[in-house]
Amino acid sequence: MERIPILQMGDFLLVTIQVDMHDQLALTLQDDLSERISKTSARGVLIDISALDMVDSFIGRMIGTISGLSKIMDAETMLVGMQPAVAITLVELGLNLPGVSTALNVERGMKLLQERVRQQ
Amino acid sequence: MERIPILQMGDFLLVTIQVDMHDQLALTLQDDLSERISKTSARGVLIDISALDMVDSFIGRMIGTISGLSKIMDAETMLVGMQPAVAITLVELGLNLPGVSTALNVERGMKLLQERVRQQ
Repeated sequence: MERIPILQMGDFLLVTIQVDMHDQLALTLQDDLSERISKTSARGVLIDISALDMVDSFIGRMIGTISGLSKIMDAETMLVGMQPAVAITLVELGLNLPGVSTALNVERGMKLLQERVRQQ
Repeated sequence: MERIPILQMGDFLLVTIQVDMHDQLALTLQDDLSERISKTSARGVLIDISALDMVDSFIGRMIGTISGLSKIMDAETMLVGMQPAVAITLVELGLNLPGVSTALNVERGMKLLQERVRQQ
């Protein structure tokens, strides 16, 4: 399976990362996502990483790129479902994901995004 | 990564299948799902298979089992995101997934589930 599915939930897009990311998969995801944002006029992107036991600098960079690309297209990015061990590792490594908002789970992330969109 | 994440969205649980299923993964998913239904009192389960290019009898059986187990726990199952080619194959093979409701995508599936739950 060579692409990560993007699910539409109202004004938002949900991406659940479950598999090991490699270069091509990350590029495909970025392409697919930008196309979907433009097609659906989505206001936000939720990236769920609850299935990941670890986040390395490659995934960190990919999340940063997605966030930057969404921002340009007027969509906010929210990272959700981070496992405690992943959070500890990120802090210890000094990877602080600049410009990326986080929430505990999809529900809270969606609520936060909805509030932000309403304020705009 | 050895388990499929289950995301909670209000009264419903969302499972996105992206990886090739094997026996152990399917069993783990069934265990996790029944536990989550009981813990969260979820009223419905959405299974997204938009990432799957093909559905074989193993996955078909797994979806049937999940549907049966959810029903016993008072939750409806909705299969969403089926690709056209998958639908054609299922019909040609005569695998008609008895007892499983389907919807075109997550949004429509969620709307349908909400209507059904309201009617009860």
